[in-house]
Amino acid sequence: MKVIDGGVTAAIGFEAAGAQAGIKYQGRKDMALIYSRKPCKAAGVFTSNIVKAAPVLWDKEVVTHSPYAQAVVINAGIANACTGRQGYECCSNTAKTAADCLGISKDAVLVASTGVIGMQLPQDKLDAGVKKLAELKSDSMEAGLIAAQSIMTTDTVPKQAAVSFEIGTKTVTIGGMCKGSGMIHPNMCTMLCFITSDIAISKELMQEALSENVKDTFNMVSVDGDTSTNDTLIVLANGMAENPEITTKNEDYYKFVEALDYINTTLAKKIAGDGEGATALFETKVINAVNKEDAKKLAKSVICSNLTKAAIFGHDANCGRILCALGYAGVDFDPDKIELRLENDENSILVYKDGAMTEYDEDEAAKALASKEVRALVDMKMGAASACAWGCDLTYDYVKINADYRS
Amino acid sequence: MKVIDGGVTAAIGFEAAGAQAGIKYQGRKDMALIYSRKPCKAAGVFTSNIVKAAPVLWDKEVVTHSPYAQAVVINAGIANACTGRQGYECCSNTAKTAADCLGISKDAVLVASTGVIGMQLPQDKLDAGVKKLAELKSDSMEAGLIAAQSIMTTDTVPKQAAVSFEIGTKTVTIGGMCKGSGMIHPNMCTMLCFITSDIAISKELMQEALSENVKDTFNMVSVDGDTSTNDTLIVLANGMAENPEITTKNEDYYKFVEALDYINTTLAKKIAGDGEGATALFETKVINAVNKEDAKKLAKSVICSNLTKAAIFGHDANCGRILCALGYAGVDFDPDKIELRLENDENSILVYKDGAMTEYDEDEAAKALASKEVRALVDMKMGAASACAWGCDLTYDYVKINADYRS
Repeated sequence: MKVIDGGVTAAIGFEAAGAQAGIKYQGRKDMALIYSRKPCKAAGVFTSNIVKAAPVLWDKEVVTHSPYAQAVVINAGIANACTGRQGYECCSNTAKTAADCLGISKDAVLVASTGVIGMQLPQDKLDAGVKKLAELKSDSMEAGLIAAQSIMTTDTVPKQAAVSFEIGTKTVTIGGMCKGSGMIHPNMCTMLCFITSDIAISKELMQEALSENVKDTFNMVSVDGDTSTNDTLIVLANGMAENPEITTKNEDYYKFVEALDYINTTLAKKIAGDGEGATALFETKVINAVNKEDAKKLAKSVICSNLTKAAIFGHDANCGRILCALGYAGVDFDPDKIELRLENDENSILVYKDGAMTEYDEDEAAKALASKEVRALVDMKMGAASACAWGCDLTYDYVKINADYRS
Repeated sequence: MKVIDGGVTAAIGFEAAGAQAGIKYQGRKDMALIYSRKPCKAAGVFTSNIVKAAPVLWDKEVVTHSPYAQAVVINAGIANACTGRQGYECCSNTAKTAADCLGISKDAVLVASTGVIGMQLPQDKLDAGVKKLAELKSDSMEAGLIAAQSIMTTDTVPKQAAVSFEIGTKTVTIGGMCKGSGMIHPNMCTMLCFITSDIAISKELMQEALSENVKDTFNMVSVDGDTSTNDTLIVLANGMAENPEITTKNEDYYKFVEALDYINTTLAKKIAGDGEGATALFETKVINAVNKEDAKKLAKSVICSNLTKAAIFGHDANCGRILCALGYAGVDFDPDKIELRLENDENSILVYKDGAMTEYDEDEAAKALASKEVRALVDMKMGAASACAWGCDLTYDYVKINADYRS
């Protein structure tokens, strides 16, 4: 497997575009299109929130019942959530406009929205935006980047990843883009993520690989504990790499899973590191837990703790808060047995052992915590299971962004 | 039942004191004592966190195994959590010092600590503090207030409540004090709360009343979702009101429960409203849910949502975030059926109905949210159960307080 540049246009046959539709943001691109020259098999995972945005309802229909998908239309600024029947009709109308412009079937068009909850989308602006996108679409790397930029809300950087690998004599490529900064606590997948591949694979196996993998990747990310109404992760595969179609869990399947895991992990970490107001990616790795489920609960509890997140912002090695968060995770353990390390890429400092803090050097710890990527490593000393979770620090800017997000 | 002034010294036979021991804070009182002239029956509820502070372990022993309790020694500044064997020995030594000063048994002394996790308490300063407290103790209302002030950490106001009621010809009084501002997400009770009463009641019934009542009061409060290692709620009853001892669930018992509920609710709301950095108490009331458990989950999910809390700080009627928090609470409901109101003491604004936002006046809503006490009223329209939860807004000051709490 080789990490390559690019995003949703990296794989053969995929085009993308971004355009300024003036839906809510002014003076920036706020709509994006992903288009495949050939029909794609589609897999998707969606928010577990009871309150589901209209595009989530629409996309579930398409992924479940349409024979294939060929395009995704995305807008930023308004989430089309809590919008009732009118919101759902908006999805249908937008898909119709895109289908007409692209010469494809309406039920092959996925839609996605991100932004403010409760407002209705202006259909005329959406339709005009879709027409622009259809004209602008291109398979260039730049087009992929523009699409990734166009779906940003409070994100500070566009988020892309791509890899390629060989199946026999054929090169298979997977690329993806995502957005997400606030209301990030995915419980099926992240806010919006789109992955394209030229791989030939059965729809069932692609869905299975996706559903399994999100549990260890996107579902282990939290910025603020709020599971969005719009979480959507779509994978499109158009088969244009011409590998023998993967229909069983053979060696080729596991190559695909490995590549998908890389893309998902990379994008998930980018979302965590670019959490609203964040100055650092905060990873918690739990090792030697009794089982995977426990390891995940413990890791996620730590990265979700507001107090821990604020301490990370302050470069304060306040490991008591990490211990506290482990303690209320709902997992049984002996606090006297575990060990805790604070780490960055250069240093690893043992801060807790034998039921008490070690006599570590506070300055050294503060220095380690002043990195862009910080890790808590928790050794449970109980079993052999491990898990990682990714979050970020809690900052003044998080409050600022969210106290006046709508204004 | 009559609401009266005062706190832990309101009931007959209770004395209190505060003193400057210089444990961590300088230039302020940081230790408190509660003392009863007669031995008390004691009931207690404690943190469910696996990582329990040493005083929690000590107090559980006293409440469970000692025939009675007669004093509580409290310090602020250092939590005596994650302190291993040395931390527990410190509790034992402090109890011994207090017992000697007060002429009571060591196993009748409860201890409690709040502050930084991981540091050891200085025994010499504790012992000197205990001696001062024993000399200073008094049954005056002022002594109760000083005790309440002395246990504050990031609290901005002392927190007390007291009521009296009649049993036959006897007046019974219950008073309490608590502290708590950060790491507040009680899952047995709040951080530190001490309630004194002169009622005569059996230990078993008092414990039962307490254990039941905290579920609807302190356990429905959250400032930041972090369940502390030190949560402790102790009730002491010395019988000096001379009512006929309550040994069955008779009318007198329910009078006691009503008074206890008032004290617990009042103190719980004071903790929420004085959450670290908070500018407003944020109450969420869920009505007409299928059952109480659902109502509680829904209410608590809303007051725990960082995004909602930040919106409250910004006086932004961002009801989409409230809908979102209801949606991931883990309770099944139909988003098209429920109604949501934003309220303060003067106004009640219907903001969501029939699956979409209403056309409410944004300025009017912002004005309502600019109050010191703000309420979200959620009508599930499914059943007859209701619940209240209390939190606060998320502010710059929360981040500030917690990014450099230890320095």
